[in-house]
Amino acid sequence: MKNANVKPAAGRLGILIVGNGAVATTFVTGVLLARRGLGKPIGSMTQYDKVRVKTSPNPSEGGEKCYLHYGEIVPLAKLDDLVFGCWDVYPQNAYQAAIYAEVLRKEDIDPVRDELEQIVPMTAAFDKDYAKRLDGTNVKRRPTPQPLPSGRGIDTISADNFGEIGQYSPPCEGGARGGSDLIPTRWEMVELLREDIRRFKAEKKCDRVVVLWAASTEIYVPVDKEVHYSLETLEAAMKADDRKRIAPSMCYAYAALSEGCPFIMGAPNTTVDIPAMWELAEKMHMPIAGKDFKTGQTLVKSGFAPIIGTRCLALDGWFSTNILGNRDGLVLDEPANFHTKEVSKLSTLETILRGDEQPELYGDYYHKVRINYYPPRNDNKESWDNIDIRGWLGYPMQIKINFLCRDSILAAPVCLDLCLLMDLAARAGRWGTQRFLSFFLKSPMHDYTQGELPVNHLYQQHTMLRNALREMGGYEPDEEMD
Amino acid sequence: MKNANVKPAAGRLGILIVGNGAVATTFVTGVLLARRGLGKPIGSMTQYDKVRVKTSPNPSEGGEKCYLHYGEIVPLAKLDDLVFGCWDVYPQNAYQAAIYAEVLRKEDIDPVRDELEQIVPMTAAFDKDYAKRLDGTNVKRRPTPQPLPSGRGIDTISADNFGEIGQYSPPCEGGARGGSDLIPTRWEMVELLREDIRRFKAEKKCDRVVVLWAASTEIYVPVDKEVHYSLETLEAAMKADDRKRIAPSMCYAYAALSEGCPFIMGAPNTTVDIPAMWELAEKMHMPIAGKDFKTGQTLVKSGFAPIIGTRCLALDGWFSTNILGNRDGLVLDEPANFHTKEVSKLSTLETILRGDEQPELYGDYYHKVRINYYPPRNDNKESWDNIDIRGWLGYPMQIKINFLCRDSILAAPVCLDLCLLMDLAARAGRWGTQRFLSFFLKSPMHDYTQGELPVNHLYQQHTMLRNALREMGGYEPDEEMD
Amino acid sequence: MKNANVKPAAGRLGILIVGNGAVATTFVTGVLLARRGLGKPIGSMTQYDKVRVKTSPNPSEGGEKCYLHYGEIVPLAKLDDLVFGCWDVYPQNAYQAAIYAEVLRKEDIDPVRDELEQIVPMTAAFDKDYAKRLDGTNVKRRPTPQPLPSGRGIDTISADNFGEIGQYSPPCEGGARGGSDLIPTRWEMVELLREDIRRFKAEKKCDRVVVLWAASTEIYVPVDKEVHYSLETLEAAMKADDRKRIAPSMCYAYAALSEGCPFIMGAPNTTVDIPAMWELAEKMHMPIAGKDFKTGQTLVKSGFAPIIGTRCLALDGWFSTNILGNRDGLVLDEPANFHTKEVSKLSTLETILRGDEQPELYGDYYHKVRINYYPPRNDNKESWDNIDIRGWLGYPMQIKINFLCRDSILAAPVCLDLCLLMDLAARAGRWGTQRFLSFFLKSPMHDYTQGELPVNHLYQQHTMLRNALREMGGYEPDEEMD
Amino acid sequence: MKNANVKPAAGRLGILIVGNGAVATTFVTGVLLARRGLGKPIGSMTQYDKVRVKTSPNPSEGGEKCYLHYGEIVPLAKLDDLVFGCWDVYPQNAYQAAIYAEVLRKEDIDPVRDELEQIVPMTAAFDKDYAKRLDGTNVKRRPTPQPLPSGRGIDTISADNFGEIGQYSPPCEGGARGGSDLIPTRWEMVELLREDIRRFKAEKKCDRVVVLWAASTEIYVPVDKEVHYSLETLEAAMKADDRKRIAPSMCYAYAALSEGCPFIMGAPNTTVDIPAMWELAEKMHMPIAGKDFKTGQTLVKSGFAPIIGTRCLALDGWFSTNILGNRDGLVLDEPANFHTKEVSKLSTLETILRGDEQPELYGDYYHKVRINYYPPRNDNKESWDNIDIRGWLGYPMQIKINFLCRDSILAAPVCLDLCLLMDLAARAGRWGTQRFLSFFLKSPMHDYTQGELPVNHLYQQHTMLRNALREMGGYEPDEEMD
Repeated sequence: MKNANVKPAAGRLGILIVGNGAVATTFVTGVLLARRGLGKPIGSMTQYDKVRVKTSPNPSEGGEKCYLHYGEIVPLAKLDDLVFGCWDVYPQNAYQAAIYAEVLRKEDIDPVRDELEQIVPMTAAFDKDYAKRLDGTNVKRRPTPQPLPSGRGIDTISADNFGEIGQYSPPCEGGARGGSDLIPTRWEMVELLREDIRRFKAEKKCDRVVVLWAASTEIYVPVDKEVHYSLETLEAAMKADDRKRIAPSMCYAYAALSEGCPFIMGAPNTTVDIPAMWELAEKMHMPIAGKDFKTGQTLVKSGFAPIIGTRCLALDGWFSTNILGNRDGLVLDEPANFHTKEVSKLSTLETILRGDEQPELYGDYYHKVRINYYPPRNDNKESWDNIDIRGWLGYPMQIKINFLCRDSILAAPVCLDLCLLMDLAARAGRWGTQRFLSFFLKSPMHDYTQGELPVNHLYQQHTMLRNALREMGGYEPDEEMD
Repeated sequence: MKNANVKPAAGRLGILIVGNGAVATTFVTGVLLARRGLGKPIGSMTQYDKVRVKTSPNPSEGGEKCYLHYGEIVPLAKLDDLVFGCWDVYPQNAYQAAIYAEVLRKEDIDPVRDELEQIVPMTAAFDKDYAKRLDGTNVKRRPTPQPLPSGRGIDTISADNFGEIGQYSPPCEGGARGGSDLIPTRWEMVELLREDIRRFKAEKKCDRVVVLWAASTEIYVPVDKEVHYSLETLEAAMKADDRKRIAPSMCYAYAALSEGCPFIMGAPNTTVDIPAMWELAEKMHMPIAGKDFKTGQTLVKSGFAPIIGTRCLALDGWFSTNILGNRDGLVLDEPANFHTKEVSKLSTLETILRGDEQPELYGDYYHKVRINYYPPRNDNKESWDNIDIRGWLGYPMQIKINFLCRDSILAAPVCLDLCLLMDLAARAGRWGTQRFLSFFLKSPMHDYTQGELPVNHLYQQHTMLRNALREMGGYEPDEEMD
Repeated sequence: MKNANVKPAAGRLGILIVGNGAVATTFVTGVLLARRGLGKPIGSMTQYDKVRVKTSPNPSEGGEKCYLHYGEIVPLAKLDDLVFGCWDVYPQNAYQAAIYAEVLRKEDIDPVRDELEQIVPMTAAFDKDYAKRLDGTNVKRRPTPQPLPSGRGIDTISADNFGEIGQYSPPCEGGARGGSDLIPTRWEMVELLREDIRRFKAEKKCDRVVVLWAASTEIYVPVDKEVHYSLETLEAAMKADDRKRIAPSMCYAYAALSEGCPFIMGAPNTTVDIPAMWELAEKMHMPIAGKDFKTGQTLVKSGFAPIIGTRCLALDGWFSTNILGNRDGLVLDEPANFHTKEVSKLSTLETILRGDEQPELYGDYYHKVRINYYPPRNDNKESWDNIDIRGWLGYPMQIKINFLCRDSILAAPVCLDLCLLMDLAARAGRWGTQRFLSFFLKSPMHDYTQGELPVNHLYQQHTMLRNALREMGGYEPDEEMD
Repeated sequence: MKNANVKPAAGRLGILIVGNGAVATTFVTGVLLARRGLGKPIGSMTQYDKVRVKTSPNPSEGGEKCYLHYGEIVPLAKLDDLVFGCWDVYPQNAYQAAIYAEVLRKEDIDPVRDELEQIVPMTAAFDKDYAKRLDGTNVKRRPTPQPLPSGRGIDTISADNFGEIGQYSPPCEGGARGGSDLIPTRWEMVELLREDIRRFKAEKKCDRVVVLWAASTEIYVPVDKEVHYSLETLEAAMKADDRKRIAPSMCYAYAALSEGCPFIMGAPNTTVDIPAMWELAEKMHMPIAGKDFKTGQTLVKSGFAPIIGTRCLALDGWFSTNILGNRDGLVLDEPANFHTKEVSKLSTLETILRGDEQPELYGDYYHKVRINYYPPRNDNKESWDNIDIRGWLGYPMQIKINFLCRDSILAAPVCLDLCLLMDLAARAGRWGTQRFLSFFLKSPMHDYTQGELPVNHLYQQHTMLRNALREMGGYEPDEEMD
């Protein structure tokens, strides 16, 4: 290993997950099993992929080429060094949650039951308006409902309120539904979450912590230049408890970055996809990554669309439908939450099959994405794509792809890779949006304020990933061709 | 255009096609329509694809990047300069054959009816043992059946036999089935075909000629070191009329190369996939390309397998079935012919998902390919693939791909591109196997005698293609990444 | 033929179609072609199906069994005796509309071009609120906008208004969108339509007329007991121009029945699916049939669900999605119109797989239907069904059905059969809902006020159809078994 | 219950199964679980289906109709009264075999482990020439290889040979493969099997025994009039050890019938589908049933083809492919065994969509069935059907059905139903081919020597089944319509 400029992966790496559901528990259980040799982390790039590198960085010296695992190129945290924690609106521990999720068989979970039972969710910073179908009670509350800042306008909130608020739910029955005045303000949420992170890090004796959002899709929050374009206005809105424009997820991201933790957005929420967060990431010198884990249908789409584009076949239409039955599906059955997802999923094709570059081929295709809540299948998501293409002289052909996938099984290795690679990025001194991680994301973040385009083409993403590793490892870029 | 070292594409380019069936007539009709502006050559890389090049070949000089069409990088023959001819066992002209094929609608063929009617097949060098289901009578014959060389051993045939044999069928009713002694010897076939090429080139005033095999799959001919490994033994076997080891297609290839014409094998026949032909290509300084046009199912497979491999998902099995009803399907319904195709189609996965490199992921998958003759659909081939993969902790998932394709619609642009790029290669002084054309081929030729592996990964093939164009155009290679 | 009690099919049968779109023009063109021997009316029961009958009506006499076509059992109108007319919001004649629909190839339409061109739509009784996506101008208008009945309350409208209104559009540009005060009242619509029917019948010298709705789905009109449960209140609402509760389609049905014409509802509109219309049908001694032609997905569903039910397999879920691109799809892309369709399509399973009878098998399945507007495919609708079943010990299995159908190609023979059989029913003295025609309908009408259940099981429907024919033909019922 | 003429189901019913593989163990395990209330026998008609009957057998008396379970109409053996035994070439007991089969989860098998372990296979009457891929050693042998009857001609064998042969394998290593002279003659097999049956019946104190073939498909044995058309010649061939024309399965059937046990052929073997066996069944007054359990693809086909036929749509082609990986698939990968299956599967369509009755619709369709051994999926068979149909004016449409089924899960309830209903038939005094059981069979037996046609239409089969029950129960037939 040559490792120019990357700090070593010494000590323990804490992984704090927002959401203790199907994805999180599958991820955690798998890591615990893998490090005991009881399961294979299949699908994980950091554990399996190999990168071609030249042993000499100078090609003219005729350095030999060889294939190395990521960990042989850069210093990655080891599975043995990972420590897990989480927040969730439901109080069940990770073992209970894993059993409830029904992704993994009980017999596969049981060998690490003890470890899982020790992962008990901290109370969540939750606002039911952002996920109407969820109903948990393990949420942060204001201990004594106080008069809220009058008018809720910016700047009217005083810091004096924060002293008394605590983390644990009062024994009243009301729950979060009991009244929105029990919900902490957005700024209070930030403070409480920062406290959580600090306490977790200390208790678990972690050297570093990464925060990973593996919770539900929130309702769609349109980017608002007045609030989301600068750190100053963002903070002001948080302090003013502007609940419409500050999603709870933003409090997590803000808290993580403020505490010096990389933040990963695994849902399609626009949380860190706004200039204000980029500013915070820059200020804190911390990396961010998002958004939306690239799992089933979009994974296939970002790999299949290039087949069409590479062969210069024309596209008339692409219809994508999904049926899914887990909690994710339930949340997405609410139109406001679906909209967030839809925006994320629709963007894939546009940058792969570009009408501006090939107007005769891609100037006018019809792209539609549908997601349907369908309980009988639980986590076993299924997608069906119909693709209408045209070839020689415009003659039409059709392709249908039916993917019987498992959402969490595909998401878990992505969680692992993103956590390890974000930790790496932080140690390599990289901050802001990590475009080299686009490979793992359905809707890769990019600086849309500058007209920058995302890269959705799976193989271009793969090359970006490998070249970043080469760079961090002190090797030169490579065309990937023998 | 910078064009280091490529001769200009001056004059007319003759394209002589073996087989006047669905693929050939779709290809020819499309070119004729396209050059009148009546149809679009969709799917053709030479007509649509763009390659990123740096305007300055020296990267350190900071040359700007731009996207150019192939024809802007290298001198390609223009559609207007193409002249078509063909051989076929059926005497119908290209208009009749196009109507019979039922690939294109009559209303799309009619505008170029006149031009198509002038394309009348020359008699084919045919041996029914190589395609039992075909039955044509437009075949080369010996005028007066003479005693054949005794023993058919090597070296016993004298050149004296060749004077009397002619090209046109005698008016007897027997046809090719009348007796195998009416079939010219393999060496006579070569001589007759060379004469055909010379006459066509002279009559049509062509500057250059490319020979393209777009005929049926022959029965499987195992590579025999005694015969196929050197030009000398190959020629001897031809002269000895060794019908078991010399397929008729080899006579076409031999004739083409001997006349200074690049040869393209569009079927899975091993014709030029033997060292003896490589030797001939080298001797004549002519390029060869093969084998098997990459059209429907394999196109998808070579693009889809990388999705699995790129994400380090494990593969348990891949089952591919096809239903097809055209003449190609009829020929392949004969087990001996199918075997040739099967060998070609099976090789795709092995070099993309490699068990030697990733034994946990690809060490033990089951791959099966089935082709079924199913007349109701004619040229509208349909494939169905079932793919069994495994992810995180080995949990299984399934993908099914159903491709309702049109064989000839996908093959036609490949014909065009291969003809234009092989002509380019010849003008660029390239000879032997053109690996940069692997992109267009199901079973790309490679030097198996040296343990060389073929490249089947669609995107690696694409990079190879683009880099070869850059090289011929005088640009430096490129990682294809912005 | 024995024909107890059915009047002969003497003279010409007029078929007046509401809607001159894809379904109507495919139906009409096909009949015109078939009667010239230029096309086959495949899919038509009246033209192909055979029914087993006993030659002697008394089984104890041991009569022999034989298979007869419908026309050999009962007197059906001949294709040669049919005369077509239509209403539509677009003024194009049937030839223009058939070409526009792109269902049939131009070469198949042209042989009957002359006849089609003579079918010019009468102005439609149209209210854009019921089909927002439609935009035609060939609609009935009030010539001089007059003050509308004040209050629009029941009984406040006087008959005096009707004298001045005419059928043809004024030359103003405004169109129907110009102002809703240009739209005739519902009662005026009825009067105008009755006039249309009378004029058509006289001009075309028809002996009998059937009115067939082959137009779009209207928005969902919930059944309102105050208005829809008696003829008296229905008429009052029409006179009061109660546009919210009286759909335009009701005016067509009212007009048809009032003129002594059987009425068929081919869309899912509840038009005649209300007690008020049953009362009118009884009063006029006319048959009615509806609703929603059983074409692609529901045809398959009503035939496939019995496979599951017959074998006592359990059902967990059935997810049905459709993509369609014709005008029907456009209209259904509007949620209010889709809802009408959805209610119709969802009812199919409930009466085939009944949770009340087999609670362990069908007590708790999830059924979802989605329709998606997808323009690339036009009339070539495609459906995809996923069915989750369970067998022995509850082990799960899945079935996926992908139907690449053609909506109008499946609907056209249903139109023909319904017209001929409704005319038969009228001659047989049958009035009210014709349950024996459930076979042709997605959501068969039934007396829900009495708790009656519809029959959706395809084979039970088939038996009902055959037994009704036997009865009208004077034969005894039959178990259909040899 | 009225039960005219059916003996009561008193005492214990022994079920002797040939083959202790996936199907048999799933069947047995399920019954054992169901009778303890630990599992539901879903898919079983005898346990779930209800039949409409009139409480008064005389319709003129206006008897009321009601729906009854089979067991309420006729006296069926109870699950509690069943006793299981088996033969197999592998010595593993039913628990071991069930675990090996991997159809049911271990946790579902374990509750009845004790009972399963007591089911130990008797040695099989096996001839490896009939199933080359099988390799078991638990087979019947001749203890001391004696000179076989010279010439193997008819009548040369004497009864004296049988004294010494025993049932258990000698401890020699040779196994069945050691030499075919160790295999008992066919007649010896019969004798040994009869002895097995008698001993089982006595030991288990059974009142009645049914013999069920749930073993592999044997190689195709063409019906030979010289041997298979009369009982006399059949017996002679058995005695002459005519191994080519007497399959081992025939020995099982012969033994069963001779011992007064109904025999069920669950594979496509022609065992009892020959006049000689019909003669024996008549002689013994025993019922026979076969052949080939109707499970996945053919179940769907026999239910789906009627959709097409019922609506008078035309058929161009039907392509059926299967992938399966269990032992059944392995055996069928041998072409000679596949042929037996193919003949069975191909017959389904011919009698449902009849070209003789509807030549324009079904006069010329192409039907192809393929079965592929594909190990990754084990017992989870998967089928894919492509159906090409034509509608109005001959316009083409396509249907694709993808069934992810579980072979044994579908076969197990069929086993249960056939055993219970065959026992019923025997008690009802029915003998010979039981056509009313066609519902359960892929290729229902019928008297082809008289030109009789099988009934493959699923709903006609269902009506036949119900009417036979009504008849045995003393009720009149019913049209199944309300």
